[in-house]
Amino acid sequence: MPKVGIVMGSDSDLKVMSKAASMLEKLGIDYEMTIISAHRMPDVFFEWAKAAEGKGIKVIIAGAGMAAHLPGMCAALFPMPVIGVPMSGKNLDGMDALYSIVQMPPGIPVATVAIDGGMNAAILAAKILAVSDDDILERLKAYSAEMKDTVQAKADRLKEVGYEEYLAGK
Amino acid sequence: MPKVGIVMGSDSDLKVMSKAASMLEKLGIDYEMTIISAHRMPDVFFEWAKAAEGKGIKVIIAGAGMAAHLPGMCAALFPMPVIGVPMSGKNLDGMDALYSIVQMPPGIPVATVAIDGGMNAAILAAKILAVSDDDILERLKAYSAEMKDTVQAKADRLKEVGYEEYLAGK
Amino acid sequence: MPKVGIVMGSDSDLKVMSKAASMLEKLGIDYEMTIISAHRMPDVFFEWAKAAEGKGIKVIIAGAGMAAHLPGMCAALFPMPVIGVPMSGKNLDGMDALYSIVQMPPGIPVATVAIDGGMNAAILAAKILAVSDDDILERLKAYSAEMKDTVQAKADRLKEVGYEEYLAGK
Amino acid sequence: MPKVGIVMGSDSDLKVMSKAASMLEKLGIDYEMTIISAHRMPDVFFEWAKAAEGKGIKVIIAGAGMAAHLPGMCAALFPMPVIGVPMSGKNLDGMDALYSIVQMPPGIPVATVAIDGGMNAAILAAKILAVSDDDILERLKAYSAEMKDTVQAKADRLKEVGYEEYLAGK
Amino acid sequence: MPKVGIVMGSDSDLKVMSKAASMLEKLGIDYEMTIISAHRMPDVFFEWAKAAEGKGIKVIIAGAGMAAHLPGMCAALFPMPVIGVPMSGKNLDGMDALYSIVQMPPGIPVATVAIDGGMNAAILAAKILAVSDDDILERLKAYSAEMKDTVQAKADRLKEVGYEEYLAGK
Amino acid sequence: MPKVGIVMGSDSDLKVMSKAASMLEKLGIDYEMTIISAHRMPDVFFEWAKAAEGKGIKVIIAGAGMAAHLPGMCAALFPMPVIGVPMSGKNLDGMDALYSIVQMPPGIPVATVAIDGGMNAAILAAKILAVSDDDILERLKAYSAEMKDTVQAKADRLKEVGYEEYLAGK
Amino acid sequence: MPKVGIVMGSDSDLKVMSKAASMLEKLGIDYEMTIISAHRMPDVFFEWAKAAEGKGIKVIIAGAGMAAHLPGMCAALFPMPVIGVPMSGKNLDGMDALYSIVQMPPGIPVATVAIDGGMNAAILAAKILAVSDDDILERLKAYSAEMKDTVQAKADRLKEVGYEEYLAGK
Amino acid sequence: MPKVGIVMGSDSDLKVMSKAASMLEKLGIDYEMTIISAHRMPDVFFEWAKAAEGKGIKVIIAGAGMAAHLPGMCAALFPMPVIGVPMSGKNLDGMDALYSIVQMPPGIPVATVAIDGGMNAAILAAKILAVSDDDILERLKAYSAEMKDTVQAKADRLKEVGYEEYLAGK
Repeated sequence: MPKVGIVMGSDSDLKVMSKAASMLEKLGIDYEMTIISAHRMPDVFFEWAKAAEGKGIKVIIAGAGMAAHLPGMCAALFPMPVIGVPMSGKNLDGMDALYSIVQMPPGIPVATVAIDGGMNAAILAAKILAVSDDDILERLKAYSAEMKDTVQAKADRLKEVGYEEYLAGK
Repeated sequence: MPKVGIVMGSDSDLKVMSKAASMLEKLGIDYEMTIISAHRMPDVFFEWAKAAEGKGIKVIIAGAGMAAHLPGMCAALFPMPVIGVPMSGKNLDGMDALYSIVQMPPGIPVATVAIDGGMNAAILAAKILAVSDDDILERLKAYSAEMKDTVQAKADRLKEVGYEEYLAGK
Repeated sequence: MPKVGIVMGSDSDLKVMSKAASMLEKLGIDYEMTIISAHRMPDVFFEWAKAAEGKGIKVIIAGAGMAAHLPGMCAALFPMPVIGVPMSGKNLDGMDALYSIVQMPPGIPVATVAIDGGMNAAILAAKILAVSDDDILERLKAYSAEMKDTVQAKADRLKEVGYEEYLAGK
Repeated sequence: MPKVGIVMGSDSDLKVMSKAASMLEKLGIDYEMTIISAHRMPDVFFEWAKAAEGKGIKVIIAGAGMAAHLPGMCAALFPMPVIGVPMSGKNLDGMDALYSIVQMPPGIPVATVAIDGGMNAAILAAKILAVSDDDILERLKAYSAEMKDTVQAKADRLKEVGYEEYLAGK
Repeated sequence: MPKVGIVMGSDSDLKVMSKAASMLEKLGIDYEMTIISAHRMPDVFFEWAKAAEGKGIKVIIAGAGMAAHLPGMCAALFPMPVIGVPMSGKNLDGMDALYSIVQMPPGIPVATVAIDGGMNAAILAAKILAVSDDDILERLKAYSAEMKDTVQAKADRLKEVGYEEYLAGK
Repeated sequence: MPKVGIVMGSDSDLKVMSKAASMLEKLGIDYEMTIISAHRMPDVFFEWAKAAEGKGIKVIIAGAGMAAHLPGMCAALFPMPVIGVPMSGKNLDGMDALYSIVQMPPGIPVATVAIDGGMNAAILAAKILAVSDDDILERLKAYSAEMKDTVQAKADRLKEVGYEEYLAGK
Repeated sequence: MPKVGIVMGSDSDLKVMSKAASMLEKLGIDYEMTIISAHRMPDVFFEWAKAAEGKGIKVIIAGAGMAAHLPGMCAALFPMPVIGVPMSGKNLDGMDALYSIVQMPPGIPVATVAIDGGMNAAILAAKILAVSDDDILERLKAYSAEMKDTVQAKADRLKEVGYEEYLAGK
Repeated sequence: MPKVGIVMGSDSDLKVMSKAASMLEKLGIDYEMTIISAHRMPDVFFEWAKAAEGKGIKVIIAGAGMAAHLPGMCAALFPMPVIGVPMSGKNLDGMDALYSIVQMPPGIPVATVAIDGGMNAAILAAKILAVSDDDILERLKAYSAEMKDTVQAKADRLKEVGYEEYLAGK
């Protein structure tokens, strides 16, 4: 049974949102992923957002660009956390989507992550589930250790080969 | 029967939106005005937006601040023009609302006016109705002439009294 | 007889503005399209904007970039709705054109759409005409249904093939 | 035992952050609240952030202004969700704090809410706890219903008295 | 015979534009000043801008706020220099007017000064006239010397009394 | 004897500034052009700016990017008009240079043109010289007519071939 | 003999820059403070900046607003560190000054601090002198401890009295 | 013994930060360079920043992008100067990093240089060391002379060959 619902407004968001999906897989968390436009199919959207709780979904990750209403409208309809991922587009570097997602009015928060931050949305979802799931908490701690090792290995390599060779070898 | 529906997300928007109402009155256009939060009462909002066409409403004027989703969600549900009024708030001077309203994705436009532009929203609604209503068109032309006369009177007064007295008398 | 006038300040805007033209064609709406610079040929521009009403034009779509004065000056001269399309250029991502178009002073609104939103300008023009034209209203509803089906088909394909194959096949 | 830790970088943030505290009280959620500057007392901060999990804290709400590092550094040290509240200050309307909080690099997300969004941070914390706590979920649903009723009452009053009396009576 | 024409779009600009007038007076340069809205009275505006050359006007100073089209449209109609003064308004701190004035397309420059820079517009007009008028050039040099003396006197006072007394005495 | 001095802070500005040079050539105006960094060779810069008046220079066109101080420092040293050209660079789209040039304090204006507006700087210089030079005025009027004809020809071609062929042939 | 030179472009900057002076006093560092406008008295400025090294000045703190050229021009003339303080003004919240100061081209850095950051400029100057002055280093460490104690005392008081009494007593 | 510590949050910053390293080499200043993520390895980071003083490091150059906390956290832990280099990334042109670095709260300054200003960070570090090291001061003066000669050579070449050949030969 999926614990996380991933939804995006357009398949142009899929490249970023697929990073959320693959990170959830890596952390062993079931999810469902779909494309629903709050603007182009508001009824389908309403139905999906209202049905999410009944399907066992505990967190929604919603990605959208431009005047990004999908995350905020999810937050209006789903009682548990909604994570918003602002997408950058052709213009404005995602500032339009960032403001449309983060500046929610009192009462209906969206947990906003960085512009194009699909992977971080999945980690945040895992952190939310980890509040009551020790297995996920352990996997997150392991992932943190892994991140640390990756950076440490880069630092070691830089020390060993110097910056010129490092840059040449990138 | 109201031809224009004015809707706002919060009564903090009423000061700006009442300028839309009074301008519609001046231009002799029937309207209904209400407060509906797309985020706090999504079902009521859906019902209202879907029922608008049946009530004879031809144009919706929707005002909202911050992550302003109300105009865009109206445009998703109502088949005729939706005019969006971005509200300035405590921070960001209305840039958040402007981007949340004007940057609509392909297929679902919102006719956006200036930040806090309640009066202009009413004039735009009248221009839209004037496409098929010669009375309104005449009233708009009269209003244009009136605006011109007002500025001309100010220019005349400035010429007559000079800038020091003009500024003192403001 | 054309119902919509499309005007742009430079042929560098044509790529975006042609999307307005093709959408109007799709919706069965007659239009005329031309290039007139308000800055380089102000007299021609004045004449064109003033003659528009007499030619039967009901809505003007005006696109311009940088210090975009064309839409606002149209709105000063034409009594029915003017839709403004801000163009992105080499710098500033269209923010200069957006502000130059949307921030119109009280009395002379421009119905502003998204940066580079040529297609949405045409849909908004159609919505405006649909206020008094049931055929156009029906075509807009059909187009909405078509948009919904397109997204639904993408959602179905994503469900069927998964995100890796979907992204590979894009 | 506190479930939520509220931390802020300076007592100038207390006015906004106290709204988080009072909302948690309203929702019946235990919390502890303190002032710790990541910049002025990094050791105290490190100790506090590392000890949080052991004290039973499940969610941290961190508020900070300007170059706001407190939320991000909490997220580096605490394995469960960190909610960041960007504070507006004398200049820049909180844009500096917003960017400093939301634009976290891959691997260490902060759940960012609106500028000065102290109350929303508490609601988001409650939504996170509601994933595994049905009582909190019920209280959130009751709060949503309450918000809806409040807006409805305003809409009713506007209908009853008209906008002039409504504005006069505000 | 006036050498400089000062024009503004609204009498709300008069406070800033009167600084241009008083500086021109100080520098002994004849001017005429009026209020003409390019949007509300386009015909009057066209006539005025086209007649300016024949009246002996050599430089136009045009001030406007929001979507500020007045300076650029002057530059389209008047063959000599147009100086644009962006006005700050209720929102956006004059950024909208700045972009609307400075970002003119190739072929039709506007000499833009700082936001609310009415006084500087007059000095720039004087510098332009000084190209062919040695009296004005001398007066500008005298004004420069005066500015230098004013700052020097402040520096002397600061040295004499110290910053505490200086600030107290401001 | 050169009437216009063109100066830029770096040869990376030459591509834009050469458009100023070629436009001055087209308008038959003598100029000198050089590269002087106000930051890297302040003494050379001071000497050059102070000597300009004696060499017969009537207008300086100064281009610079990033923290663009060259135009403003020219304006501090040269008593006649200085035109500033903000250059876009690797980041920020020229906003840094625009603010550094246009926001001059009271007393020392810089006539600022659009970002990367080298050609417009030359036209503005010509307009300034045209105040007292009828030949240049005539050439500017001829250039305006030429611009108008160019746009008209594009409009004619669009009418003739339609937008698809026009775009294909670009 | 002064080790730090404090310079500002206008006495409107004195309120912020006096915080630099008083912090230097607190840290026992000699300084001289003056008002010199790079734009209004470029010769005086050049002389001052060139003479600074000979007077024993090791660090310059330069504050300026709008198109803030003073810090960068100091850095062009003085071979040791220049600290720039961007001032907020009537418009733009100091963004213009920030860009004009921080975005220095390769070769001539300015050590930029926060907008209106007069006090921080003094601490940074002290840190620079502390590189070779153990007394100043000790005083800085003592000041850090003092800052920590101040925040700790606030945290203690908040714990003791609760947020309502704390806010009431502010 | 290294006098300068260069640290960056990710090896994606190395291209910019290596310019700091090579400039320090050119100026004959010992340095150590490493990669440490304040977010991914906070304990390693704390240890490194606290140990820096004991290792003889006098200045830290810290580069980071997005929500760039590394420079500010260094400044919280290291008592001598910290120079911050904001990195541009995929979105926002480095504005997020600039605000996250420069807007430090009172008491903990970071000496911020331009976005992607790695080379300037090294020159600023050298200027700081030059306060008490005459050899470095001499090398900086020589470098300044070299910069001046480079620009002069470009100016000479432009004069010699003209702008067309200059641009062709770039």
